Amino acid sequence: MKKVLLTVCAVCFALQVSSQENLWWKTPVNSPEVHKDNTVTFRLKAPNASSVEVVGDFLSKNEKAEMKKVDNDVWEYTTPKSLNPELYSYSFMMDGVKISDPSNVFMSRDVVTISNLFMIDGKESELYKVQNVPHGSLCKVWYHSDKHNADRRITVYTPAGYETNNQRYPVLYLLHGMGGDEDSWSTLGRAAQILDNLIAQGKAKPMIVVMTNGNSDLQAAWGESPTGYVTPTIELPKTTDGSFEDAFPEVVTFVDKAYRTIAKKESRAIAGLSMGGFHSMQISKEYPTQFNYIGLFSASARFKGRKESHIYENCEEKIKKQFSQKPALYWIAIGKEDFLYEENQKFRSFLDANGFSYTYVESEGGHIWKNWRNYLCQFLPLLFK
Amino acid sequence: MKKVLLTVCAVCFALQVSSQENLWWKTPVNSPEVHKDNTVTFRLKAPNASSVEVVGDFLSKNEKAEMKKVDNDVWEYTTPKSLNPELYSYSFMMDGVKISDPSNVFMSRDVVTISNLFMIDGKESELYKVQNVPHGSLCKVWYHSDKHNADRRITVYTPAGYETNNQRYPVLYLLHGMGGDEDSWSTLGRAAQILDNLIAQGKAKPMIVVMTNGNSDLQAAWGESPTGYVTPTIELPKTTDGSFEDAFPEVVTFVDKAYRTIAKKESRAIAGLSMGGFHSMQISKEYPTQFNYIGLFSASARFKGRKESHIYENCEEKIKKQFSQKPALYWIAIGKEDFLYEENQKFRSFLDANGFSYTYVESEGGHIWKNWRNYLCQFLPLLFK
Repeated sequence: MKKVLLTVCAVCFALQVSSQENLWWKTPVNSPEVHKDNTVTFRLKAPNASSVEVVGDFLSKNEKAEMKKVDNDVWEYTTPKSLNPELYSYSFMMDGVKISDPSNVFMSRDVVTISNLFMIDGKESELYKVQNVPHGSLCKVWYHSDKHNADRRITVYTPAGYETNNQRYPVLYLLHGMGGDEDSWSTLGRAAQILDNLIAQGKAKPMIVVMTNGNSDLQAAWGESPTGYVTPTIELPKTTDGSFEDAFPEVVTFVDKAYRTIAKKESRAIAGLSMGGFHSMQISKEYPTQFNYIGLFSASARFKGRKESHIYENCEEKIKKQFSQKPALYWIAIGKEDFLYEENQKFRSFLDANGFSYTYVESEGGHIWKNWRNYLCQFLPLLFK
Repeated sequence: MKKVLLTVCAVCFALQVSSQENLWWKTPVNSPEVHKDNTVTFRLKAPNASSVEVVGDFLSKNEKAEMKKVDNDVWEYTTPKSLNPELYSYSFMMDGVKISDPSNVFMSRDVVTISNLFMIDGKESELYKVQNVPHGSLCKVWYHSDKHNADRRITVYTPAGYETNNQRYPVLYLLHGMGGDEDSWSTLGRAAQILDNLIAQGKAKPMIVVMTNGNSDLQAAWGESPTGYVTPTIELPKTTDGSFEDAFPEVVTFVDKAYRTIAKKESRAIAGLSMGGFHSMQISKEYPTQFNYIGLFSASARFKGRKESHIYENCEEKIKKQFSQKPALYWIAIGKEDFLYEENQKFRSFLDANGFSYTYVESEGGHIWKNWRNYLCQFLPLLFK
């Protein structure tokens, strides 16, 4: 009863606030509803709409699932089959306009695409969930780059206990793809959850993870820099002109100064997805004494004939030099349907022809976050052994 | 030309990615467009809609601005007057369904309300902008609470230079309102930008700011705790049952251990908005040797006759004891249209009747973020002098 009274008080308070702030304290309908059998029902209250569809990565490519009007107000769609445990994203198309689900406040941005999120729990997604395990910290930190003549933002994960102990930790530099930014790995990539969970399970060593912004034109993620709320674009010239790779040692210097790192090659890894895989390849070969573990996730792997920067010149020779110094791990993963599949095979041919040792993982699927999260889960346990 | 070629490469790359990921690399239309005279045009591409409206805090309460179809596809609304420099939020109503602007990726959540954001630049909003000044770090950190028997998350701002110097800093504890969480002050409250800018201007002392989660039922913001993607609600009983205030010293103990604080009353402040103002009143009087600067922003200020917790008993006596120890600043701000206005006047009458010294600020407007950001801008320069 006391609880009821308190709740009534809270509601009255809410209503008062609501009348001033014009907030909606309830979502219009229950959507998405994940059923016990892992089928999912999507709902949209839209009395005047003529058509509503669901689009999302739980459907086949370009598939749109038609929603049906189940009463005068509400449109509904239920997946015909159970969905596999995974983090999914979706949107509605209402009379041809792509909209977010007004009943689901959880969303993420990928360049200019806002999608709603939902999770199907289970073995395959347990590493992506916030579990009741010790949690590391996730920080937005700025450092100064002389080469870029700008303050730039990085996202830093420090493992649980970092603030109150005196230990030193190895460091993984984890790089995003074209169109992403220093937020991508911690949002769509679920990096903090994956790290927390693998460390708690004893499968990964406690480590610091540094997520950079690989676009030299940006000081920070869209909306988080002095340029303000500028609409994101992928058409940025300074992603693969060598300037990011050229200035990368500044990040390492800052991190080794600002954090209790183990500042040597044996305790340093670099990995990235797509463009970030390309950056990881370039940076690790450019500074062969610095990184002992290298991960290329669905990497853009074209290493020959590039002229945009001195960084990209003599790539073969530099990679040979890198391998002569025997990195502990060179890990390549690509999906069978990835548009970069052939590029990766060509790169492998070069490595094979030279007898360089690397690990190769071929997965299903294409150039998607599901794969990159999965690659990270596979890669982390191999580090700093 | 080289730049053009690079751009072409980037676009080709983007298109390839796009075909796999089904991403939209361009927003449908330019919206919102802030014109040079600070009028704003909103646009929605919706060929089949029958009506589209804009709602937002740049309009009067409950006002909806009707958008007109300017061609077969696009609906448009332009504000008749220039808008004042401020951070604004808005949504569209398309055929009665509240939707986000698909052309604007910048949004924020307030309980279950997702709104799009835009900024009008100018003197009044310059403190809310990311400026080219040294930036502090913003961290999501977990601590263990024995009293709540849970790990709980806080947001911590450390001033620029914290990671690379050895200084100790004073601490402001900054609390959110009912329905908010440990993210609120750093998103809608623009706390990190305000701190960065005021510190850079020499108007505020460099300080650590700790933003807690004032709802004892939650370990972290919605979606960020082990409960997963659960729809937010404001009807939570453990917001004003005394349990948060009771366990507050655990946060202070953790912060003083984890950060280079100046761990004494002279260097500790506490402030909050609405429910957080109530919490600040209660915590500062419960632990009168701990906080020297107290800020009540649009506070829920009913301090008499509460029985929910031993914390709320004998409030008058405890406040008298607090004032006998002469806090350096007791700062109260409220809007003339705030539904808590009368409650604040009653609280002032009690303080006046006892001859207690405090600062009172009365602003225009009601229970809104615009006021809370503004109060924070006024409050920070008064701390730790």
